[in-house]
Parts: sequence; structure tokens; C-alpha cells
Amino acid sequence: MKLYSYFRSSAAYRVRIALNLKGLAYEYAPIHLLRDGGQQLKPEYRELNPDGIVPTFIDGDHVLTQSLAIIEYLEETHPEPALLPGTPLDRAFIRSIALQVACEIHPVDNLRVLKYLKHTLQVGDEAKDEWYRHWLESGFESLEKRLANDPRVGKLCFGNTPTLADLCLVPQVFNARRFNIDMSRYPTIERIADHAAQIDAFARAAPGQQPDAE
Amino acid sequence: MKLYSYFRSSAAYRVRIALNLKGLAYEYAPIHLLRDGGQQLKPEYRELNPDGIVPTFIDGDHVLTQSLAIIEYLEETHPEPALLPGTPLDRAFIRSIALQVACEIHPVDNLRVLKYLKHTLQVGDEAKDEWYRHWLESGFESLEKRLANDPRVGKLCFGNTPTLADLCLVPQVFNARRFNIDMSRYPTIERIADHAAQIDAFARAAPGQQPDAE
Repeated sequence: MKLYSYFRSSAAYRVRIALNLKGLAYEYAPIHLLRDGGQQLKPEYRELNPDGIVPTFIDGDHVLTQSLAIIEYLEETHPEPALLPGTPLDRAFIRSIALQVACEIHPVDNLRVLKYLKHTLQVGDEAKDEWYRHWLESGFESLEKRLANDPRVGKLCFGNTPTLADLCLVPQVFNARRFNIDMSRYPTIERIADHAAQIDAFARAAPGQQPDAE
Repeated sequence: MKLYSYFRSSAAYRVRIALNLKGLAYEYAPIHLLRDGGQQLKPEYRELNPDGIVPTFIDGDHVLTQSLAIIEYLEETHPEPALLPGTPLDRAFIRSIALQVACEIHPVDNLRVLKYLKHTLQVGDEAKDEWYRHWLESGFESLEKRLANDPRVGKLCFGNTPTLADLCLVPQVFNARRFNIDMSRYPTIERIADHAAQIDAFARAAPGQQPDAE
């Protein structure tokens, strides 16, 4: 198994946590999103991933893209420990938290969108930071409401064992802190992220622990 | 079962197709995204869906959010006909197409982002339309490459039976046409969307067929 990753990519970070939790060894293939005009945009990488984004996951001869599709695949092929435990309703809850991060917060604040704002729309740094904060804070606000009021939440998003929801939440909190978002406004999210950080599989997946960390 | 929907919402459209394919009857609860300053932002709706977006799906006492989480739930509770057929690798392919639409194209071009560009960043109509085209066209370009070259593709994204991939692709093509995107540049996507349009479950889910259509 091989993972094309960038240490700071939160989508790659999700998959790294999943691989660690499942106890799967993999080769780490770094793709630098800024160097050389973005190594993810080079033709040889785009052969694997036409969208020009990380991660790309290789299992034998097979090329898989999209972090959540990769994690669902790992869940189906290596069911233990389960990242989607419980009943269909529990899994709908877990997936909805994951997707709220992956579809509502992350895409609007990712690198290529920020670059478009700066270079094409010529948006100034202050307005660009305000954009970032706006989508992150409005997303976290509604996530906090959901997590604070749901009896399924424990030390982590679903009880006390890591699920797909935590795999998406923790990298987004890492990004938020990098951008100096005041996490004390989201006490449940903060508490969950801090608890997860102590789990070995999460700690080893953190950006600062990757071979390409700067 | 009850679906809070807006006729033009492509996330709601995905769920409507799934419900039709599964043969499940549901009550249609219209939420007008523009009227009254956006009915999705009213406190009573935000009790159900703190994010203030459609769709929200009600099954008995249970409230489900995020279109793909809802569809995975329907797949688990009503497995036939399968929207995620085949092997784990096949499902990874199907999910990755769906997620490429749901995480890469749709979020950056949805209503609330376009409103922020216009009202907060004061981006003019031309630059706003260019933004829309940019994300849609770059997304469709890479999707076209993937679909044109994959032997699993048939009349639809995965062979000839509807899957989660088609449920996401068809509403995105509807949006693209509404914004006058030249679909002939994406012949595989266009061919799949046109084939799907002839299937009754897709046709009945189309925006123009909904009770709140304008």
C-alpha cells in the first residue's frame, strides 16, 4: 500500500489516521502542494489523480482517490477496528458529521480556492483571512450545536472509540488552529480533538510527524 | 418519511432520486432557499438542521442530514436495488465519483458561496459567473477523463444500472446546463446524464417535477 500525501493536507491526514487505526503499513509518497508550482499538477501525478489533489491511495494495482471513498474501502476490506460502528442510524450520524466537514467546511477553505481568491479575484490578505474564518466558524458553530446536544457523543464524536467523524474533525481542528481560530468557542469540538490527539494512531498521523514535515 | 427539499437544490435532488429508485414514498416539505431571506435559516428549521441547508430527511422520529449520509442510510436499510453494487473496489470507484462532485465541485459553487462573493466581497456578476464556470469546468474536465477511460463505465457511471455516482452527477449536470455550460466538451458525462434522464426515478426527481417548482 502506498499513500500520496502532503503533510498539511487534511484529506490525506484523514486517511493516515485510518491506516494507523487499522494497523496497516504503507509507503509514504510526498507530493508537495506548493513546490515546483504544485507537484500535484504535474502530468505524471495527474495520470493517477486527474483532479490534481491529494491523497491518492494505491493498493496493489489499484488506484483510489477521494479520502472518504478510500476510508470506506479500508473499512470494507479491513473491518476491524470499525470506523463505522453501530446501527444504520448511528452510521448516518457518524457520516453526517464527517460530510459536514468534508463537504461544507473544507472545500471552500482549501488551498486552491484561497489561491483563486488571491490571484484571480485579487482579494487582499485581510478579506481572504475573513473568508477562511467565515466558513470555518459558521461550520464549527453548527457542528458544535450538533455535538453538544447529541447523547451519542462521548470522549469522541461517537462514544469513546474513534470513528470516521473524528478522522474528519481532527484535521479540520488542526487547520483551524493554524489559522488562529479561537477554539474555546467550540468547547465540545475542542474537547474531542484534544482527546483524540492523545491516541497513538492520531498522534502518528499528525502533520508534524510526517516525513515531508517542514 | 419526509424530505425537506428545495426543487433546485442538487443535494436534495440526489436524495429524491435515491428514494424513487428504492420505491419509497415520502412527504415533500418545501424549504425556499431565497424567499423570506432564506427559509433554511429560520430558527425552526435550524432546530432540525443547524447548518441551515437542505436536505433534511425524517424517518419516523429520526432526523438525518447530509445527502450522502442519508443515501448510505437508505442503502443500508433498503438494500434493493443496490446503489453501491459490486466489490469493495467497485464501490470505492462509485463513491469517489460521487465525492468528486459532492466535495470538489458542488460546495464551491453553491448558493451561499455565490452570495458571499457578491455581497461580502462585492465581486461583479461577470467575475462571479467566471468563478462558477472555473470550478465546474475544471471539475468536469477531470471527471470526464476518469469516466472516458474507465472500463467500468457503461450507459451509466458503473455499467448500466444507477448508482450513487449517477445520483450525484445528474444534478450537477442540471446545474451546469442552467448556467449555460457547454456540455459537449464532456461527452461521456453528457451521454450518461442524458441516458439517466430517461429513467423514471430520475425523471420524477427532476427540479421541474417538484411541487415547489417555479
